[in-house]
Amino acid sequence: MSSTSANGKVYLVGAGPGDPELLTLKAAKLLARAEVVLHDSLVSREVMALISSDVLLVDVGKRAGKKLLTQDEINSLLVSYAEQGKLVIRLKGGDPLLFGRAGEEMEALRRAGIPFEIVPGITAAVGAAAAAKISLTDRRVASQALFTTFSRGETDNWLNWAAVTPETTIAIYMPGTHYGEVAARLIENGLAADTPCAIISHATRAEQQVRWSNLAALSDSDQLPAPSLLLVGRVATQGAEQWRERVRTELFAVETEFRDLPI
Amino acid sequence: MSSTSANGKVYLVGAGPGDPELLTLKAAKLLARAEVVLHDSLVSREVMALISSDVLLVDVGKRAGKKLLTQDEINSLLVSYAEQGKLVIRLKGGDPLLFGRAGEEMEALRRAGIPFEIVPGITAAVGAAAAAKISLTDRRVASQALFTTFSRGETDNWLNWAAVTPETTIAIYMPGTHYGEVAARLIENGLAADTPCAIISHATRAEQQVRWSNLAALSDSDQLPAPSLLLVGRVATQGAEQWRERVRTELFAVETEFRDLPI
Repeated sequence: MSSTSANGKVYLVGAGPGDPELLTLKAAKLLARAEVVLHDSLVSREVMALISSDVLLVDVGKRAGKKLLTQDEINSLLVSYAEQGKLVIRLKGGDPLLFGRAGEEMEALRRAGIPFEIVPGITAAVGAAAAAKISLTDRRVASQALFTTFSRGETDNWLNWAAVTPETTIAIYMPGTHYGEVAARLIENGLAADTPCAIISHATRAEQQVRWSNLAALSDSDQLPAPSLLLVGRVATQGAEQWRERVRTELFAVETEFRDLPI
Repeated sequence: MSSTSANGKVYLVGAGPGDPELLTLKAAKLLARAEVVLHDSLVSREVMALISSDVLLVDVGKRAGKKLLTQDEINSLLVSYAEQGKLVIRLKGGDPLLFGRAGEEMEALRRAGIPFEIVPGITAAVGAAAAAKISLTDRRVASQALFTTFSRGETDNWLNWAAVTPETTIAIYMPGTHYGEVAARLIENGLAADTPCAIISHATRAEQQVRWSNLAALSDSDQLPAPSLLLVGRVATQGAEQWRERVRTELFAVETEFRDLPI
């Protein structure tokens, strides 16, 4: 099945965290119609198994830590297949617009005048939270969520974790195995050593694993296989009840202290 | 269709940002099997239209700004229907674990010994970014994304926007119509007055609207109907190219300055 008309179209599609049931209806329908799928290594094999063998599959991910294609080469392929009139899917683990390099691909498509659309997916932090049953913004102990990454890759690390407050839940994508370094940095930036953490590996898949810890103990935690995600914050316990109690106790102590002041 | 056996099960299900095609396969299948659905006002009418008329629908949202049920009443209903052996869905706009009060519902279900599961959904920020084609973490100008809210509701506002850095994309849920106040606060906390913004209303639905602005001009922007989302940061332009150029120019200026120092 190939069109002979003018330009095709490119869909940047989120494949979600792993469980193929967490694809959107739209993503599933598009995958059934696609002519070319460019995918990377973060797309789970269960999702890949849904793609018909008629489809031209292009692996643009990494093998043994080495990139198969540069970002410029990926951009060129997207443009080139679309110029051949194909329905092209750029399939990314999680959501395309969170840590997915979609910015560069959208720019290349805009410059080439190729029509494109974004089909959002369940991002890793949200999949991991669902798997571990952690409310990321439980209003009793958290007010916001920061989605960040810990990478010591080729570009500078722009993180500014001075940003971090005790009421912010932090979701760290691709934490690698530098748990101790991450923990040390968060404690330096003012988080309590007993701030809870959870490491979620292969969230929403059969081989899913969850480890509960806290910042002080994090470096001793088992290193779980990638892809994994680290959630840090008061919400990251099995039941946030204990933290709510603690916050209440602290508030009560503060109130009592003020009550004793000679005002 | 009703079971007579022991406890039923509760699914906390994300309905996504509005377009019913952005439901997950799992959510769509569960909605087809549900016996009771408790939903709030953030679930789009297009998603509601998918639910069979046989299902017992309970509206637990707001009418004219007034809550129909308290959170405790919602928790009790979830437990009570599950104890009747029903397959119960608690359907929430976006994702259940981001600004969805799932923490309290999970706690009530745990205490009552009711089995439950979380089915993640596309959260509003991700839906809005897809609609406006904004890469939230375009690595050329951003390193992380903060999902936060601006509410002057019954509880204290816990926001700590001192957290904000120029490389952080900020997604503000439920910004209401206080655009000027939000902008003033971000500028006070060090963001440049010309930081780009986009307001996205009814993202992914037919009535979707997007307004492009910047912090200085935000208070003059049209007020768009709820639900809306405010994206703030260098990525929030139509094409982040201009900002990449600006960052390059600034870096070049800094490098040039250092080069002239007598080291």
